[in-house]
Amino acid sequence: MPDTRTDPAAPDPRPRTRGRGRPRRGEPADTRDRILDTARAEFSRYGYDGTSVRGIAKAAGVDSALVHHYFGTKEGVFEAAVAVAFAPALHAPDAVAEGPPEGVGERLTRFIFGVWENPTTRTPLLAILRSAVNNETAAAVFRRLVVSQLLRRVAAQLEVPDAELRAELAAAQLVGCAMLRYVIKVEPLASADLEQVIRRVAPVVQGHLTGP
Amino acid sequence: MPDTRTDPAAPDPRPRTRGRGRPRRGEPADTRDRILDTARAEFSRYGYDGTSVRGIAKAAGVDSALVHHYFGTKEGVFEAAVAVAFAPALHAPDAVAEGPPEGVGERLTRFIFGVWENPTTRTPLLAILRSAVNNETAAAVFRRLVVSQLLRRVAAQLEVPDAELRAELAAAQLVGCAMLRYVIKVEPLASADLEQVIRRVAPVVQGHLTGP
Repeated sequence: MPDTRTDPAAPDPRPRTRGRGRPRRGEPADTRDRILDTARAEFSRYGYDGTSVRGIAKAAGVDSALVHHYFGTKEGVFEAAVAVAFAPALHAPDAVAEGPPEGVGERLTRFIFGVWENPTTRTPLLAILRSAVNNETAAAVFRRLVVSQLLRRVAAQLEVPDAELRAELAAAQLVGCAMLRYVIKVEPLASADLEQVIRRVAPVVQGHLTGP
Repeated sequence: MPDTRTDPAAPDPRPRTRGRGRPRRGEPADTRDRILDTARAEFSRYGYDGTSVRGIAKAAGVDSALVHHYFGTKEGVFEAAVAVAFAPALHAPDAVAEGPPEGVGERLTRFIFGVWENPTTRTPLLAILRSAVNNETAAAVFRRLVVSQLLRRVAAQLEVPDAELRAELAAAQLVGCAMLRYVIKVEPLASADLEQVIRRVAPVVQGHLTGP
């Protein structure tokens, strides 16, 4: 997982003057990460609307001011937490790039299902999806990350007209599969053999991305 | 919208002995419908977890016992509200049946986008989707309705092996499009010309349903 302290999408911490929310000298370097882990768990459990900076601070055992110092508003904490949770999916453009164009559908499909099949990477994605479906601010964060960091980068590798729309329709097939298989758990899809599902979905993703 | 009092999916009212929750003689015939409309609005605003039978009763101006009388538990109210909201989508199998098999993809795609494009039918669907993504009980109700009343009926009309899995993968493409276009509102898909979207999605739905 990348260090989000260098993530250009993460909001800048406030000016470095020593104030109420500044970490104490000798504050363990991982306090920020601990707040972020706690925030992820809180957003996951209570959703965007049910989570507060105060609640995150309390659960992480720090002062609210320290949370504000690192992340600004609740939206800032959410965006940083989402960026971490979303990090595995951000390798999808590499999956698109690494290999011949005629295999892009299968590589991307296999990669995305891999992220969803693994409980460690599935849980935070689920939390983001839940928040995004329920709250307009959370949806905006989701849009910024998914569109600018994922779909645009996938689209940039396709030498076709309407590349962004194509990438989104391919994403729609994959998001819909994730919804029905992992979230709502509709049968037989939820228990279907993964390879069988990939065999049926990969050509669709390929068609969207490079088809006529 | 069909009269849900004759809907076989709606839970049976309790025995008709006059009890605390029985409607008074002369109770307006539309009290049940009013409770249902109120319930839909409450579930839509507060989600499954944030809605209570007591809150629905208060908002509808009736005694909680009357809500229990008509619908049983909160799950029962939710299922009845969802059945009403879901009613327009239940005509999808007719869209599949009415016409030649090679046009089924376009008919189904056009029908489902039509339901989502219309704010009157979109709003309740959105409320169901939100609840189902957030709550296991709501997801179970969604599964029962979508699978037994929609996907199985679509599948029954296809003379192919794996008809149910095919119907679900087609549904995944349509659900994913609805998520990205109407819920999360990812651009350019959210503002794309509907006919252009249908032209790209219909062949995919056709392929899932009747392809090799």
